[in-house]
Amino acid sequence: MMDDRILLGHGSGGRLSHQLLDELIIPLLSSGDSRSQNDAALLGEISGKLVYTTDAFVVDPIFFPGGTIGSLSVHGTVNDLAMMGAKPLWLSVSLILEEGFSKQELTTILHDMRSAADKAGVTIATGDTKVVPRGKADKIFITTSGIGVLEHTIAIHGGNAQPGDLVLINGTIGDHGIAVMAGREGLALDTEILSDSAALNSLTEQLVASLGTDLHVLRDPTRGGVATTLKEIAVQSQVAITLQEQALPIRPGVRGVCSILGLDPLFVANEGKLLAFVAPESARKALEIMQQHPLGNQAAIIGHVETTPGGRVRMETSIGGIRAVEMLAGEQLPRIC
Amino acid sequence: MMDDRILLGHGSGGRLSHQLLDELIIPLLSSGDSRSQNDAALLGEISGKLVYTTDAFVVDPIFFPGGTIGSLSVHGTVNDLAMMGAKPLWLSVSLILEEGFSKQELTTILHDMRSAADKAGVTIATGDTKVVPRGKADKIFITTSGIGVLEHTIAIHGGNAQPGDLVLINGTIGDHGIAVMAGREGLALDTEILSDSAALNSLTEQLVASLGTDLHVLRDPTRGGVATTLKEIAVQSQVAITLQEQALPIRPGVRGVCSILGLDPLFVANEGKLLAFVAPESARKALEIMQQHPLGNQAAIIGHVETTPGGRVRMETSIGGIRAVEMLAGEQLPRIC
Repeated sequence: MMDDRILLGHGSGGRLSHQLLDELIIPLLSSGDSRSQNDAALLGEISGKLVYTTDAFVVDPIFFPGGTIGSLSVHGTVNDLAMMGAKPLWLSVSLILEEGFSKQELTTILHDMRSAADKAGVTIATGDTKVVPRGKADKIFITTSGIGVLEHTIAIHGGNAQPGDLVLINGTIGDHGIAVMAGREGLALDTEILSDSAALNSLTEQLVASLGTDLHVLRDPTRGGVATTLKEIAVQSQVAITLQEQALPIRPGVRGVCSILGLDPLFVANEGKLLAFVAPESARKALEIMQQHPLGNQAAIIGHVETTPGGRVRMETSIGGIRAVEMLAGEQLPRIC
Repeated sequence: MMDDRILLGHGSGGRLSHQLLDELIIPLLSSGDSRSQNDAALLGEISGKLVYTTDAFVVDPIFFPGGTIGSLSVHGTVNDLAMMGAKPLWLSVSLILEEGFSKQELTTILHDMRSAADKAGVTIATGDTKVVPRGKADKIFITTSGIGVLEHTIAIHGGNAQPGDLVLINGTIGDHGIAVMAGREGLALDTEILSDSAALNSLTEQLVASLGTDLHVLRDPTRGGVATTLKEIAVQSQVAITLQEQALPIRPGVRGVCSILGLDPLFVANEGKLLAFVAPESARKALEIMQQHPLGNQAAIIGHVETTPGGRVRMETSIGGIRAVEMLAGEQLPRIC
């Protein structure tokens, strides 16, 4: 039935656009009582420095074990704000829909966005919807942007890793990438691997509050995985990072799929993980905070920071060797987020 | 040559992504000296209420007479902030690129974005780039979001049209839609019609400063055109709006193309026009401000507001009749912005 599908006219700005907004998008996404029908949203006044980010989400498939493009598009942007030590406040949502896309699938995705936003404590403040002809996009692309506020003066950024720091992660690596790939390829796995997609802001708020200036870097290892993210930090801070392979938390299922397909879990994307660089005297406290948080029960200390050689990441392997860790060179898993 | 084209790996988050960012995107878009390499941008503190908006741009063709998807994506978001009476400050830019897209075309588009942002006085603060396989998107889609600040307490919104108000527009209607269509269809027109795509914030700032509380509504008639926008305002404010057809500024070339193709210029998109609802005692002043502005030399008073029938728009036609004006019903020109 035509009524079940997105039409080009739903992107016209005219009557069909208003219907789609009034009947589906606004009721599902908006926290307010009614649609403002203005070109932009009026937010409150805030005190503190603003933090601002954006991400496009083009994940394939749009429904995968443990999440959807909807929940992912909220988590990703909330996490980018959280990694700056900011409190995420507002999101914008821009939808690009392919003509013929299922309204029912759209409904599920919007519901997931709202649910993820509510859980993370952020408000979806403004949005836009465009429709392109069949074959000119792949079902749905979502771009979110986010505004947060920095309510403290602690410097938390990729250039702040310091010799002596310990490197922590809040749990297993590679879950998101392998879950998406399993969803895409229809791999028959013994145990289902779920994406770790989650909003990390409640965990980062606890870390900031408890560790203060002993918390030096927060970063979520998404595209490019833990390896690429650590390499970025090593270069930005001009320090050497050494990983202990044996300390890396990896689910057996993820390890198995990676070994079958020749993938290195260090390069596989995560969407609910953070790397924290913490002064050694606070590392134990950081680990405990993570382990007591619902998103951190498999947290671990996985490495440490030294002065030289600056810009380098190495891994002490489980068989006692040392190997260099570089950035992801090509495209390991396209459309992972 | 492969080097001239976007590869899937440019969206990996790994080495190729960093190259694209460092060699092309950051130097062209960023106002700062270097790339911050963090997940989000740290903005300054601001005083005043924040205004927030987003729009996706999927215009086809991406290069059209008078503009590109790049300049359009900046103008559209700047204008959405300006129509709230806000001062636009920061933009985010999210790119979805099709594998195989030309790096040279991308360079032109990024250059246009930066040039439009500089001219409008806004900073591109943060961004993201994704790449999807060939055939899964159409060359390039751009989503911008924008943050502005409200530096006054004048209520300017679609629900504030008041009986007695005069309705002004800053120039000719339909130019953008017809320019894009001409670019798409390769129409051989006697005179080239250029898109009116432009940033309206310097004009709105002058109107706000000079008219104060006599300025009731500002709205840019983009998708759906002047007709749809006026209908929205009539419904939001529960007032009746009457247009004078003879007063509508329309270029002869636009009128000609519309009559050949059976289009009504009232429904054709504009990207550098605003509708202003102004108390009658200030309408003359508003018209003069517009006419003295580079984007308003063909400004005109095109209608007025009455109490009843609420929610209705009518037009006094040039042959002396009256006709109802409704929202755009279907999709007149897909992918106009």
